[in-house]
Amino acid sequence: MAQTSLDLLRRGADHIVPEGELETKLREAEVARKQLRVKLGADPSRPDLHIGHAVVLRKLRQFQDLGHRVILIIGDFTATIGDPSGRFKTRPTLSLEATRRNGTTYVDQATLILDSDPEKLEVRHNSEWLGPLDFGDLIRLASTYTVARLLERDDFTKRYQEGTSISVHELLYPLAQAYDSVAVRADIEIGGTDQLFNLLVGRDVQRAYGLEPQLALVLPLLEGLDGVEKMSKSLDNYIGIAEAPETMFKKAMQVPDPLLLRYAELCTTLDLGEFRRGAAEDIVAAHRRFARELVRTYHGPGPVAGAEARYDQVARGGIPDDLPEVVVPGGSLEAGSVGVLALATLAGLTSSNGEARRLIQNRGLRLDGEVVEDWRLRVDLGEARVLQRGKDRFVRVRR
Amino acid sequence: MAQTSLDLLRRGADHIVPEGELETKLREAEVARKQLRVKLGADPSRPDLHIGHAVVLRKLRQFQDLGHRVILIIGDFTATIGDPSGRFKTRPTLSLEATRRNGTTYVDQATLILDSDPEKLEVRHNSEWLGPLDFGDLIRLASTYTVARLLERDDFTKRYQEGTSISVHELLYPLAQAYDSVAVRADIEIGGTDQLFNLLVGRDVQRAYGLEPQLALVLPLLEGLDGVEKMSKSLDNYIGIAEAPETMFKKAMQVPDPLLLRYAELCTTLDLGEFRRGAAEDIVAAHRRFARELVRTYHGPGPVAGAEARYDQVARGGIPDDLPEVVVPGGSLEAGSVGVLALATLAGLTSSNGEARRLIQNRGLRLDGEVVEDWRLRVDLGEARVLQRGKDRFVRVRR
Repeated sequence: MAQTSLDLLRRGADHIVPEGELETKLREAEVARKQLRVKLGADPSRPDLHIGHAVVLRKLRQFQDLGHRVILIIGDFTATIGDPSGRFKTRPTLSLEATRRNGTTYVDQATLILDSDPEKLEVRHNSEWLGPLDFGDLIRLASTYTVARLLERDDFTKRYQEGTSISVHELLYPLAQAYDSVAVRADIEIGGTDQLFNLLVGRDVQRAYGLEPQLALVLPLLEGLDGVEKMSKSLDNYIGIAEAPETMFKKAMQVPDPLLLRYAELCTTLDLGEFRRGAAEDIVAAHRRFARELVRTYHGPGPVAGAEARYDQVARGGIPDDLPEVVVPGGSLEAGSVGVLALATLAGLTSSNGEARRLIQNRGLRLDGEVVEDWRLRVDLGEARVLQRGKDRFVRVRR
Repeated sequence: MAQTSLDLLRRGADHIVPEGELETKLREAEVARKQLRVKLGADPSRPDLHIGHAVVLRKLRQFQDLGHRVILIIGDFTATIGDPSGRFKTRPTLSLEATRRNGTTYVDQATLILDSDPEKLEVRHNSEWLGPLDFGDLIRLASTYTVARLLERDDFTKRYQEGTSISVHELLYPLAQAYDSVAVRADIEIGGTDQLFNLLVGRDVQRAYGLEPQLALVLPLLEGLDGVEKMSKSLDNYIGIAEAPETMFKKAMQVPDPLLLRYAELCTTLDLGEFRRGAAEDIVAAHRRFARELVRTYHGPGPVAGAEARYDQVARGGIPDDLPEVVVPGGSLEAGSVGVLALATLAGLTSSNGEARRLIQNRGLRLDGEVVEDWRLRVDLGEARVLQRGKDRFVRVRR
């Protein structure tokens, strides 16, 4: 096995437990001409993937490219049960069908990154093996672990010390997840740093069931574009993996300088030594390089130049060509014109006339490239006009 | 409901939780003309019952006599699972059949005390409802309780503080036992003081499943004849409920003075005020009274006088009439006689000639009422002889 493969697989890893075993496992698989089974437990309740989620998926892809097999586990069973605290009297509301639908969406997006060759990707649902477990099986599973060790998990420790209640069933989830590793006979499990503990439980439980324990490879959680919080859709600090090339390029240019190297490491295969030297010389050029590479990664080489050109055009204060267009309904017009406040709202740039007015007072709205000074302005729609909010939100409006 | 019934049911109770509710439940059942469902979880792994076990059974009988229904739960399911620590790879060895057999023995003995009228006794096996529980059901069950509250149980607290490991499955047993109360819709559960915590878990879990919580009635654990340890067969400090009248009488006379009142309270229905006054006047007479009552309780009035007469005969150094007889095989005889060491062992009074010799040296063996002084004595078996170890072990030996 080439050293470069090993370096690639180690790239970006926060922890590999046990450290030396990655090389051993790879070598043994090579000698036995066997695929390694590399597990990821997917959470199908969040089906919109961003490049933070992609960090682990990209790592899985590297294993696939080296000939190994990814086992993507859709946690449909636990999602169906949900967290029953305080409402165990009624059946959980999320149906198995809904969970499976989410799972399908997840797989559709994940295969933008993963190789979908059935020899290299195995999608499984944990209801398959968790569903048939009876009380006896669970007693045996639960006997593999002590309460004290589970309470060592960071969040449990904190809650236990704070006196915040931990329900007994919460101790069963890590064990169920660990049992997934038993069921699929995982050689390696990949996850974010927040999953390290659970991955280690998987090792112990596999051992208790007489299996070779899996290697745990954990990757950092990517900070969002705000540079502070973990990337998440709800905080609007994310780059979606299915976003348009132009949006992706623009957002890539917004990555905070101190995080640029980390993004390059976790989200691309750019040579890091070279990238680091380049960034020291010219940070803006490095940003561009990262942005181009990110677009190329998710959209192929085709749209890269176009996305960059559009970015530049906007950066120069220009108006790009490919704009979303909004047709203003006739009823909103009076003698062919419309008030600028209503127009901004119709165009979707503001959510109310009040917001539009404040925007204009703050000199944040432009019409055909010129700042709108007066909120009482009436805009003639004899021909199409371009309305612009801030630096980069454009809408073409016409009647 | 008569106050005397309530007094009887409260008699001997260590805790009734909640205290005032016994009266309420009894009154409500009376008004609704319904039986109360009074649960006992039986441990069928110890099928030999003594009067310590009988304390709870007698309490159940009192409920039956007032018209209520006892639900005797044989824990066949949990016994089948056993404690899988460290051996979950193999199936547990105790089969469901073996557990059921033990259960039957238990019921046979318990019905020496309980009324076996099917209107008043319902024998159930918890495999009936625990067997079909799946993972989802268990998650819901486990969600009803917090880890912290389970760890409050005395033995868990101690082990947790000592750092002795508690396996996760051990937290499931109290919940399973509590689920029994849900399944049989128990109104009242009875147990020893060591079960108080589990009974209270039953209350909480019933409430979580939308049922009226059961009342917990716990009774003291009876000390053994040594006056120190809890009564148990393995410590040989017990009075078995199926022991012969003579043995029972004799053992009853051995109850340590300070415990006599407690035994009378927990093992008989003797009037305690009167008994206490009698004991203050004449402790030996009180012992006799207790012993007579105990024999009467388990064997009826018939054998009481005989058992007492035999006790007196032995106490006076006499030889009772009704002795076990051992026939010495001809091969052991030499000219019609046998060595006393061999004879003692053949008679089952000693386990080896060496022990017999030490017994004789300690002046602990008698032949026809006379101390045997010489271990080389040969005993002529021309007619039957009586061999006696200590004060009260007699065997008639003949050829």
